[in-house]
Parts: sequence; structure tokens; C-alpha cells
Amino acid sequence: MDFPTKYGPWALVIGASEGMGAAFADECAQRGLKVAIVARRADALAEVAVGLRARHGIETREIVGDAADPDFSEKLEAAMAGLEIGLMIFNAGIQPGGPFLRIRLEDHLKCIQIQCVAPTKVCHWLGRQMASRGRGGMVLVSSGAAQQGMAHWTGYAAAKAYETILAEGLWDELRDSGVTVTSYIVSSTYTPNFQRVQEKHDLPFAKGVDPADFPEGTPLPSLPEVVAAALFPQLEDGPRLYPTPGDKAGAEAGARLPRAELVAAAGAASKLYFPSGLNELDA
Amino acid sequence: MDFPTKYGPWALVIGASEGMGAAFADECAQRGLKVAIVARRADALAEVAVGLRARHGIETREIVGDAADPDFSEKLEAAMAGLEIGLMIFNAGIQPGGPFLRIRLEDHLKCIQIQCVAPTKVCHWLGRQMASRGRGGMVLVSSGAAQQGMAHWTGYAAAKAYETILAEGLWDELRDSGVTVTSYIVSSTYTPNFQRVQEKHDLPFAKGVDPADFPEGTPLPSLPEVVAAALFPQLEDGPRLYPTPGDKAGAEAGARLPRAELVAAAGAASKLYFPSGLNELDA
Repeated sequence: MDFPTKYGPWALVIGASEGMGAAFADECAQRGLKVAIVARRADALAEVAVGLRARHGIETREIVGDAADPDFSEKLEAAMAGLEIGLMIFNAGIQPGGPFLRIRLEDHLKCIQIQCVAPTKVCHWLGRQMASRGRGGMVLVSSGAAQQGMAHWTGYAAAKAYETILAEGLWDELRDSGVTVTSYIVSSTYTPNFQRVQEKHDLPFAKGVDPADFPEGTPLPSLPEVVAAALFPQLEDGPRLYPTPGDKAGAEAGARLPRAELVAAAGAASKLYFPSGLNELDA
Repeated sequence: MDFPTKYGPWALVIGASEGMGAAFADECAQRGLKVAIVARRADALAEVAVGLRARHGIETREIVGDAADPDFSEKLEAAMAGLEIGLMIFNAGIQPGGPFLRIRLEDHLKCIQIQCVAPTKVCHWLGRQMASRGRGGMVLVSSGAAQQGMAHWTGYAAAKAYETILAEGLWDELRDSGVTVTSYIVSSTYTPNFQRVQEKHDLPFAKGVDPADFPEGTPLPSLPEVVAAALFPQLEDGPRLYPTPGDKAGAEAGARLPRAELVAAAGAASKLYFPSGLNELDA
């Protein structure tokens, strides 16, 4: 079965105004899918859509929506009425950074709304459609943070763990029905948001990730286009995928460590990203 | 520092009307804490409280509350005003069973409310108090289901993963402040709820877990009193604790498996518990 026959005619990419989401949309368009893109900012969506149509000559639909809205999924369903969605990539996220007790409770709840409630509702809606058609795919973009508790990203890591384990369970429940579900575990990626936080706090990657600017061996964030492209060749090899074999090997090595050691190492890494206390990173 | 000095004067056990929660309350009372117990059913709480006072001569407080209520944490805070809580054990949970797409969306959302939102709010409220006093403890009771996706308990496993990873992150953030946080990963336990489901669907443990009734080597559910008692000697050895060394070894062996193999094995096990489709288990 070719890609559009299994995953077409429409892809729905949630969280696609820039960075990794826009890159996922591009990969879908390049494979012959029509692409619906969802994000909060209409102007950014319009710009992404213009690029998709120009590069790939495909049909697009732009949907302004906020995954933090409790009715996000219902509004999305209404906006997509009559269009058959064969592939859904859930890439929306927020990443409140800093000590858990100092982050406002409303930000923790927003984190749950976007990364637990919204993907649950979208998978419940689209999963039933795809299962009844006997084909389709759903990808929940998660994070290396999900693999253990992570100080200063504690709520974010917990919400991403929900998303990862949700995808794994759905992978198993739906794999005999022709529907592919997977979690995609992404580590630090040089998205526009990542770059903005680096610039704002004058962090090491504020000026970019050209290897020539760093000592040999410095772990550099991945580029969003590279991360997005790496999903597709392995899409059906779930339930848990990584952009590179190195990411996978790192995760597997971590899973073998005593939890206290693993959690402490993850926390030390997150504090390096956000040395100055409270920050917020929107994915 | 003796137990009441570090974890007193009050323990707050959430989800304590019977089974494991009532057993946790008993363990706290036995160690000299006053005990506040929270659950939905006033009559069951009153019965647990009578037993606690009779056996241990301690002060109790019964709070009727539902962790599915969006204002659960705020109401709990009001009900405990003026009482110093040194130890909080979050044991409330629901466990919708069956194919994810057939479980009602409202039950998936209730699962998130009880197992993601409520513990987040309670930890945010009590964590600040404990951190400012430089002592205390918070235990989030989780499940072996949290360790991988688990078909037919997909939403439950995801929510428990949130709870586990939340506890791990808080363990790291608060361990230098004198506050102990841990996840307690419990596997199948012969609680009254477990027994009711067994009876309702005429499952193998409907008549109890006396080893004499089963072939040698049959894995039997643990007893709630045994699981509750096993927490305390290891309370400060987090971030992730298990009732028995065997549970821990099993989890560690699972973490080394390829994810597809691990998730498929977990799904096969959950389908054995709920062979007949949709069920619900309230913890």
C-alpha cells in the first residue's frame, strides 16, 4: 500500500506554526498528502501553508486553535468535518521550566490540558474513525524528558510520560486493525522556540548550532527538519521511536540505570538548560 | 529524627475508605501520627476511623471528597486548615478497563482528573508547606501499568505514568530540602475493589487468594496490608519503590526488553484480567 493510500488523503498536524510541526507538515505534503495544520497564530499558519502549496502543490487547510482550550478537540472535529484524516501528528506542547513549586498551578494545569487531555480526546475521536476504516496513523510527539522524572521540568516530564504511555497502549490495541500508532521521543531540537529561550537567557546555543562554533564532541541540538524526516522511514516500527539510533541507545542505557541515578542525571541536565530559574518554553 | 518528628503530626491519606488506603492509614497511626482520611463514602470513612482510634488511640479526621471533583484539592485544603500535614499518601484512583476507543471519553477524562490533576494540585499545595518547614513526605501510589503502555488499561497506564514521573521529579527537586517524595509502584493487590471485579466476572480470584487453592507457582495478588506495610521501611529510598524485591526485579527486567515485546506482554496480561471487554475498577 503506498503512503497516500494508507495515510491519506489528509494529514492533520497539530502544533504546526513553525519548527518541528511545520517540518512534519512538509514531510506529509512531500509524500502526497493534503495537509491540515493547526496552531494558535493565524499569520504563522498562513505562512506555513503558502510554503507547503508552493513547494508541493497540495491542498492545505489552516485551523486556528489552542490545545489548551478544553473544547479544542471538538472545535477541530467541526473544522475538519467531511475531510478524511489518514494521519494525525500531535506536536503541540508547552514546557513550563523551573522549580515545580514556583511554577504557577495554572501553568501545570495547562500542561496537563495540552499534553494529556487534548491528545486523549483527539485519539478517541480519530482512532474510532481510523479503526473503522482499517487504516491510518497517529503519532504523539513526546520527549526524552518522559523517560524519568526531570527536576525543573517535573510537570512537563510527567505530562509527556502520559503521552508516551498513551501511544504505546494504543499501538498495541490498534495494531491488528491496520492503524499505526506510535510515540516519537524527541530530545533537544533547535526549534524557533528553543532558539528564543537560548537568546533570551543568553544560553550556549543562542547564536546557533553550527558544529564549527563548538568544541568537538559537544552534544548539539538536532535540527527540526532532520527530526521530522527521520520519523517516516520507521513509522510502523513503534510503539516508541527515536530520531536517531544514538537517541535510542541513550534511552535504553538510561532505562538500565538505578532510578535515583537516572533521575538525578536528568535533573542536572535540565538545570543546565534553565540555570536562571523560571522559564517557559512553548513547543 | 523519629517518625512523628519528621512526618507528623498529621498524615493525610487520600483514597482511604478500604483496602490499601485504609491499610496505609493504619500504618501511619501505628507510627504515632494523627490521621486524616479522605474518600467519597462517609460511612466507609467512619468505619475506618473507628478502627484506627480503637487500635491506636490516635486522633482522626474524616473528610468526604471526590478526587474527580475539579475543586477537590481546594476543598481538602479548607477541610485541613490549621492542621499540620507531615505525610501525604495519594492512593485515590480509577482504572477504566477495556478497549480505549470503547471506554467513554468522560471516563478517560475522569482518569486524568483523579490521577494527574488532583495529585498535581495536592503536591503543589503541600509541597510548598513541607519545603518551607524543611521536613515531610509525599507518596504517590502508582502501578506497574505505568511502566509501559498496557492495552485495555491504556488511559489508566498513561495517567499512572504521569503520577510516577511527577513523583520522581519532585523527589529530585525536594530531596535537599528535607522533604521525601516517592512513587510507590504497586502491582495486583487483593483489595475489596479487586475482589468485587473478580466476583462480578467470575475471574480466577473470585473466591480469594489462599495459596492452597491454586497450583504451586501461580502468581497471586498481594494483600493490601502487606503492600502498605512494605512502604515504610524503604520510604526514603525513592524515587521509585516497590512492595517486594520481586516486583522491583520484574520491573527492571521489563525495562530492558524491546518496547514492542514489553508492551505486547503487558497487554496480554491485562486482557487476561478483563477478558470480557469493558469493566471498571475503582482503586
